[in-house]
Amino acid sequence: MPPRGRRPVGGPDPREQILTAAAELFSELGFERTTMRAVAARADVDAALIHHYFVNKEGLLSAALVMPVDAGVLLAGLDQDPEHAGEAVVRRVLGLWEGDPETRRRLLGLIRVGLSHDYAAGVLRDLLGRTILTALGRVVPDDHRALRAALVGTQMGGLLLGRYVLGIPAVRDAPPEQLVAAIGPVVQHYLTGAIGGAPAASINQPHGTA
Amino acid sequence: MPPRGRRPVGGPDPREQILTAAAELFSELGFERTTMRAVAARADVDAALIHHYFVNKEGLLSAALVMPVDAGVLLAGLDQDPEHAGEAVVRRVLGLWEGDPETRRRLLGLIRVGLSHDYAAGVLRDLLGRTILTALGRVVPDDHRALRAALVGTQMGGLLLGRYVLGIPAVRDAPPEQLVAAIGPVVQHYLTGAIGGAPAASINQPHGTA
Repeated sequence: MPPRGRRPVGGPDPREQILTAAAELFSELGFERTTMRAVAARADVDAALIHHYFVNKEGLLSAALVMPVDAGVLLAGLDQDPEHAGEAVVRRVLGLWEGDPETRRRLLGLIRVGLSHDYAAGVLRDLLGRTILTALGRVVPDDHRALRAALVGTQMGGLLLGRYVLGIPAVRDAPPEQLVAAIGPVVQHYLTGAIGGAPAASINQPHGTA
Repeated sequence: MPPRGRRPVGGPDPREQILTAAAELFSELGFERTTMRAVAARADVDAALIHHYFVNKEGLLSAALVMPVDAGVLLAGLDQDPEHAGEAVVRRVLGLWEGDPETRRRLLGLIRVGLSHDYAAGVLRDLLGRTILTALGRVVPDDHRALRAALVGTQMGGLLLGRYVLGIPAVRDAPPEQLVAAIGPVVQHYLTGAIGGAPAASINQPHGTA
């Protein structure tokens, strides 16, 4: 192992260190109260380096809000087994959050900032609507495509909020597979079920019409 | 109609004016950046009056976070028609939000502050977990009661977030009855369905076991 110290050769990329520090501070303090100086101090870099990489605080926010994982990659191949797509969505999203503390910190920052700052809210809105729609691709039938994706977004967003942001005990402490079993059919319902007169299958009749 | 003006006799209660102004400012600026002076200015009252009613900013927050509607009253009587309790929950909650702009502003403030301030987060956590559990009362079967209520909370919280806070177009623009039709069965599933090995009814078999 290389010795620990300030940016050793082969150590963490300073750009990544800055992004991590910014995501943490945006999350803790909100966008307005986060200063470039505080980000520099937490990332243990010179403030000039932040300006070099990101120009200003808006540039830093914009970079910090880039999803640490591509939604298209995360949700790829769901159409291989469309009847279990709902469970797969819940399992993969929870796996992403539980798997890597760094990714989780970045996602948490994205949610917190997204709820306190207009620009970031747009990023979050897109993520829960358009991005999910694109990622789900052919799994979603042609009727009410945008509404189906947005409904998936409300349930998954609400789940992440309850489990990781607010920490509602019953949801925070449930084993991931319990949540997959409980919420999977709901996501399946939004993806392919009858959502109000829609000519699509219901939760328990994935290939019929309801 | 009485003439409009500054606090006419029989006009709005100054305590209510202060609470409304505080909820708006907490929502716009977050707890930390909201000052007693700004609340006084927006409510058009003397700052001393705020101290008289609420002592300090924490007291004001605490009062502003009291739900403008009693969840028990809002969700009363669902056990009269337990098979349609899910639809009724969605319809009543949306009715509450759509019905009265003042209530809506207060609720929006509660959500925004709840996501940016620890004390308020506890209020929101309780609302989406324990309060819903109490309000749903006998509709929820004995297995996984807390988890069922919390799951209802994640879906309803996510819906309110998507529709009123973030404004995801497909969810923001959907007619309330479309959302009742799409989300009602989901809430019903969480209330009485099979949520992972639970000995309760599934969405399409409200009185069987799945």
